[in-house]
Amino acid sequence: MAQQHLDPPTDPTAGISQRLSAPPAPALVRGERPGPGGTALGDALADYLRAQATEFLRSLRHHRENGAGGGSAVRGEPKAGEPGQGGPEEPGDAALALRRSARRISGTLHTFRPLLDAEWSEGIRPELAWLSGTLAREHAYSARLERLLTALHRLSGSTVFPAQTAGAAADGSGPGPRTQSAVQERGNLTVGAAKAGALLERQLTLARTRAHSAALGALGSSRFHAVADSVAVLASEVPLTPAAAGTDLCPLAAAAEERLSDAVSALPLITAGHPYNAEALIHGLSPDPAPHPQDGPWHQVRLLLRLHRYAREVLHGEEEAVDVRLLAAGGALNRHRDASEAAAAAASAARTPRIAPATAYALGVLHADQRHEVEAARFAFQQAWQRQTVGAP
Amino acid sequence: MAQQHLDPPTDPTAGISQRLSAPPAPALVRGERPGPGGTALGDALADYLRAQATEFLRSLRHHRENGAGGGSAVRGEPKAGEPGQGGPEEPGDAALALRRSARRISGTLHTFRPLLDAEWSEGIRPELAWLSGTLAREHAYSARLERLLTALHRLSGSTVFPAQTAGAAADGSGPGPRTQSAVQERGNLTVGAAKAGALLERQLTLARTRAHSAALGALGSSRFHAVADSVAVLASEVPLTPAAAGTDLCPLAAAAEERLSDAVSALPLITAGHPYNAEALIHGLSPDPAPHPQDGPWHQVRLLLRLHRYAREVLHGEEEAVDVRLLAAGGALNRHRDASEAAAAAASAARTPRIAPATAYALGVLHADQRHEVEAARFAFQQAWQRQTVGAP
Repeated sequence: MAQQHLDPPTDPTAGISQRLSAPPAPALVRGERPGPGGTALGDALADYLRAQATEFLRSLRHHRENGAGGGSAVRGEPKAGEPGQGGPEEPGDAALALRRSARRISGTLHTFRPLLDAEWSEGIRPELAWLSGTLAREHAYSARLERLLTALHRLSGSTVFPAQTAGAAADGSGPGPRTQSAVQERGNLTVGAAKAGALLERQLTLARTRAHSAALGALGSSRFHAVADSVAVLASEVPLTPAAAGTDLCPLAAAAEERLSDAVSALPLITAGHPYNAEALIHGLSPDPAPHPQDGPWHQVRLLLRLHRYAREVLHGEEEAVDVRLLAAGGALNRHRDASEAAAAAASAARTPRIAPATAYALGVLHADQRHEVEAARFAFQQAWQRQTVGAP
Repeated sequence: MAQQHLDPPTDPTAGISQRLSAPPAPALVRGERPGPGGTALGDALADYLRAQATEFLRSLRHHRENGAGGGSAVRGEPKAGEPGQGGPEEPGDAALALRRSARRISGTLHTFRPLLDAEWSEGIRPELAWLSGTLAREHAYSARLERLLTALHRLSGSTVFPAQTAGAAADGSGPGPRTQSAVQERGNLTVGAAKAGALLERQLTLARTRAHSAALGALGSSRFHAVADSVAVLASEVPLTPAAAGTDLCPLAAAAEERLSDAVSALPLITAGHPYNAEALIHGLSPDPAPHPQDGPWHQVRLLLRLHRYAREVLHGEEEAVDVRLLAAGGALNRHRDASEAAAAAASAARTPRIAPATAYALGVLHADQRHEVEAARFAFQQAWQRQTVGAP
């Protein structure tokens, strides 16, 4: 099997089809996780990892069967309120599901690492991170462009247009040349805003095209095949330590929650809870082209919140673990990240040589608008978190 | 006396010195306003107008005695928490007191106009509005520059500097050439922000200088002398209608309050009460150089709130009428107006031909920041108003 990875197949995922046809492991029945007395033991961890690994392999098979070559390699989660777009059979959805499983496996290996074979577990985690990072990028650029163009239209007071995902992900035509740009489709942009939109579209479409190629390349690489092999192992035989099976999972899950709480308590939540504190735009004109350093702790909390959610899933089962307050807090942090990156993209576009002052002005307004969104997301997180702390059982 | 106005005196206010030496009218004792049964009658109106007219004339005398020629003709109200700056003897303070009385006289003539000689009252109101508008302008430009430079420093993440009023109003050196610009004094501005600051300083200092000359010219004009004459009449003999003395003032004061309530209820307060509603920046990139039309109703409420406050002063006496909740609401609307005009000044500066893109970008960020302030002020007004409606006796 190791040899197989070195032969680049025509279909990037064809080489692993054998593993994909393996039946799911027998222990995947939901509700068996809690041990005697309701305590989740190591078995629940093994079940969860097996289930995620099986999901990963199933998504990979769907991705292969539904043609990963032509359209978008990856796409994002459907927006709230948007109708489902064809179920998990679409290649974009399959890639989304791949990322979803990869994140859960990686996060779970991290939180419960004392219960897992250390060498194996430390080996696969960076590989899963590489994979989900690579698959996420195309969607991220596409969503960023959509966010910025939507904001430009709002700022121009242009008529409301139906929400749609910008770029290739929406029309399935791939990242090739388009008959009309997303800016033109919307119409009604003022001159500076129109030029700013066209500039952003050019830059972010280029980045998305590169990310698309990178994702396709990754899915055809021997590195990816090695990851898929490791996940296939996980789907049949989770490498737990000898003592893991009877170990109570709660202390490790509690430690993950504590890391989250500690990180949250270091956030400036009192400031964030005061609307219009104008903190997020401080350094908005700083010459440093790097993302705002003040955003870092919030991004970190976003990751820790995700680990906490996955640990809850291990203990209580995926569906039972759903907590609307955690979802609201996590949603606010996603929005925080998206707005932060969109603001940085606007600032970066403004450094393009030889742009017109009107374009630069529009990009400045846009940058500040997105930093305003960053501040709004912090406020929303503070509100969600407070409700959670006060109202949690 | 009418002849005197046609001779332009060396000291612009010397021509009316005779009137200024007139003793205050005898009926100015506080607490006499409410009539039998606690109802304020027309006498209270006459007392209030006489007191305001006397204040006006006293301020004018101070202004003349302390040299209106050299320094700033006018200055703003001291900031909250700032120590008093030498009492009403400074010419700037005297001009402030002039504006204060002029606004109160004009507003009171408007609210209680059925009780006053119509021809006289309709004649003087536009003149008082002209005077206070002319005197306000220099301070407004100075405060606008200060607000914008402070914001630029905040946005550049530059070190905190002691708050001070920008321009001539702070150092009393007049609007002539300064050894160092306000931008340079603060230091630490990034390149785009520094150029934006220098551009704003140039434009707003020029506007302030012109406003200074206009204010000095106004104070020396025969038009001003005619206003002072009319106010001198008011200080001795308020032209009430024959029936006014025994008339209950409450219905007219209540009508002023109702006009305020009606205007407030037409404001989008539900939206304003949701933090980060992003309403204020809609049309932020609209090609229309005029101030945001959405600001108009808020400016109107600001004026109606002032009329309501003055009517309360007539009924209850100036000190007894102080209501911290009304002050908070009025303060929020002042901030709304200031931020709205500062945002417009940034947008206007960005239309200067041949500016560098980095300058335009900084002005765009600054514009959005001030529109953010507009939104914050609306939120603050909504909070103050809600408290007031809920908590008022």
